[in-house]
Amino acid sequence: MGGAMNQHSPIQDPEALIDDMGRRARKAAATLAQTPTATKAAALEAAARALRAAEQAVLAANVGDVERATQNGLSAAMLDRLKLDPTRIEGVASALEAVARLDDPVGQLIDESTPPNGLKLSRVRVPLGVVGIIYESRPNVTADAGALCMMAGNAAILRGGSEAIETNRAIHECLMAGLGEAGLPEDAIQLVPTTDRAAVGAMLRASGLIDIIVPRGGKGLVARVQEEARVPVLAHLDGICHVYLHPAADPEMAEAIAVNAKMRRTGICGAMETLLIDKGFADPAPVIGALIEAGCEVRGDAAVQALDGRVAAASDEDWDTEYLEPILSVAIVEDMDAATGHIAAHGSGHTDAIVTEDADAAAQFLNRVDSAIVMHNASTQFADGGEFGLGAEIGIATGRLHARGPVALEGLTTYKWIARGDGAIRP
Amino acid sequence: MGGAMNQHSPIQDPEALIDDMGRRARKAAATLAQTPTATKAAALEAAARALRAAEQAVLAANVGDVERATQNGLSAAMLDRLKLDPTRIEGVASALEAVARLDDPVGQLIDESTPPNGLKLSRVRVPLGVVGIIYESRPNVTADAGALCMMAGNAAILRGGSEAIETNRAIHECLMAGLGEAGLPEDAIQLVPTTDRAAVGAMLRASGLIDIIVPRGGKGLVARVQEEARVPVLAHLDGICHVYLHPAADPEMAEAIAVNAKMRRTGICGAMETLLIDKGFADPAPVIGALIEAGCEVRGDAAVQALDGRVAAASDEDWDTEYLEPILSVAIVEDMDAATGHIAAHGSGHTDAIVTEDADAAAQFLNRVDSAIVMHNASTQFADGGEFGLGAEIGIATGRLHARGPVALEGLTTYKWIARGDGAIRP
Repeated sequence: MGGAMNQHSPIQDPEALIDDMGRRARKAAATLAQTPTATKAAALEAAARALRAAEQAVLAANVGDVERATQNGLSAAMLDRLKLDPTRIEGVASALEAVARLDDPVGQLIDESTPPNGLKLSRVRVPLGVVGIIYESRPNVTADAGALCMMAGNAAILRGGSEAIETNRAIHECLMAGLGEAGLPEDAIQLVPTTDRAAVGAMLRASGLIDIIVPRGGKGLVARVQEEARVPVLAHLDGICHVYLHPAADPEMAEAIAVNAKMRRTGICGAMETLLIDKGFADPAPVIGALIEAGCEVRGDAAVQALDGRVAAASDEDWDTEYLEPILSVAIVEDMDAATGHIAAHGSGHTDAIVTEDADAAAQFLNRVDSAIVMHNASTQFADGGEFGLGAEIGIATGRLHARGPVALEGLTTYKWIARGDGAIRP
Repeated sequence: MGGAMNQHSPIQDPEALIDDMGRRARKAAATLAQTPTATKAAALEAAARALRAAEQAVLAANVGDVERATQNGLSAAMLDRLKLDPTRIEGVASALEAVARLDDPVGQLIDESTPPNGLKLSRVRVPLGVVGIIYESRPNVTADAGALCMMAGNAAILRGGSEAIETNRAIHECLMAGLGEAGLPEDAIQLVPTTDRAAVGAMLRASGLIDIIVPRGGKGLVARVQEEARVPVLAHLDGICHVYLHPAADPEMAEAIAVNAKMRRTGICGAMETLLIDKGFADPAPVIGALIEAGCEVRGDAAVQALDGRVAAASDEDWDTEYLEPILSVAIVEDMDAATGHIAAHGSGHTDAIVTEDADAAAQFLNRVDSAIVMHNASTQFADGGEFGLGAEIGIATGRLHARGPVALEGLTTYKWIARGDGAIRP
């Protein structure tokens, strides 16, 4: 029972522990790479059933975690993320079933060709291998991330927050039960059994055993992972998203998008943090007013302050700040060049939008702004794998290599070249 | 004149030098990302003309480098790589023109979709940004790599071997002349002006300024780059390529492929280093004999030694060795499992081939072997971007992220998501 060994591992040294888990994951990954879609889906469906059946046990484990976390003075926001109830557990189970229904990228043909030498070439998607997930208090990540990795044919090594360890273990038991029912190795989804933080460092250095690390959590976690990792990292550090109101913007649409981009949910990475209003935009005051009336604190440059007495002065820092709160920096910009220049200087390469009825201006903006997601006449709050039709997401990436923007199953694969000949030798 | 400053840079500190070059490259990259295909092609065609016109100056610079290198005791092989003649210069010029004719990946539509929220989504290829190339004595890399990076819309920072510095400068002048003629910034292709090795270290740490590093050269260089880089690296360390002769292989084809895969050119990364012969393969002795008669030293296990008295004993190390010479390790294996197991244990994820007339066996092998390139009834010597129809290659990658196998223009790009709405706000 690899899983049982995993949970009650006799290995104490974090380096040796991760090395052992990595080797077992590599072996499981070789099996998963050959596993048919239906078997992977069956494992996730069985895991969902196991989770529903284990509701009481998971809730009991969660009560223990929440009590401990309360004693340790965890913030109310963190406690809310940690806490499960029957509705949340059903949500986790449904999410497992949703992942089971996603298109399997493994084996998909990317392209094929026949160069002059006569070889029949094709590029076919294959799993990445072993994915390490490092996350904080949300126990649903255990199921979500484990399921996504596995459905794309990868083995997963999950390292959740210490405050959620009992809940994570209980959910992980259900995943292992699902894997077992489908005849798949339990090592396909492993949970790091120790809360020793040195295990995180060991994961970050485990090149050769872990192919990619995905951090899920606050900026502190992501920054540490990006700083220390010797393994490639798929992540975004900041979501400093901009909306630019062009002179040819429809004023009503501009206001609606600005308010939605900032205020729908202020704590998500796709929330607007800076509004850039072209000096040619017809009537900026109502937009500022609507934001303030929606409960947003507005910090602006002198021109914006002149528009509305309730606007505070923005400091230099404000333009580089991801508030994740109902606070917004607003600048009046000279023109498109100034807007795209501001985004290049202060943006984080996440999501930036233009509002305009001028198709040429839109094309210019979409072309020039070098972010993972660029939008025209849409709220930045749509920056999400689910909204993009990916069915789920393992994260949003702002790096330039491998995958960019919302990453789901396809981003958890790579490809191999297959060359077929008929005795071809190279002259 | 950015180029002139670059060549006679007053900046002595390597960190400050690379920082300055990186910033200028980033700026040039923003221009290149918006540059039409025809302009990029015109720059390369003009560079080719400039190179032909500068033949005498390039040869004179090369004579100086060769003299210095000879005095410094450079090996004959390295001297051969360094040395240019009119034919080689014409080859470099023609290669520039060939790159100018390649399909431009920038702006290509990868896919599009309309999720239920009504957004019109598309993924479009965009340049990676700034590419750092670190290479050894071959001065043609200056032109080849610079041209490939630029044609894919990237700025390049080239750091060639100190033994080739004068030749590289002379070739680089021609590239800058081409850029200038096409109205493109000379900072699009920069050559590190110092031979101080600390500049390499500075490049490897220049995350944020350099998006990807491509080392071109021997294993020592690649290993150093992979070890020290804080920037993603596109490379292969080893090319330990295998050919597996299956029981259902055509014996004549098996012999022809084995001899070609090893002996056509022994020094390239796609050369076979280990031959695995299934114990069910009809007649292994003639294959061994043909290899030996072609001038190959064969090192084998006991079963192979029993086949031919000229076979030396293979040591444990032999199975993990990339000879790059007319030496081959040969093992008799029990079956397909043993063959793919051997490749998993000793391969380098580069190129591995099966020879068989059995389609099911071929499919199994191609599916199971987790290498960048897997082949059926073809010589591993085809592992090359040119042979794969890519027109050129910046390198062959054995990592799992971003790009795998031969990498040319497409591998030097990433993508952005474009979302178009009609005032879409997220509920």
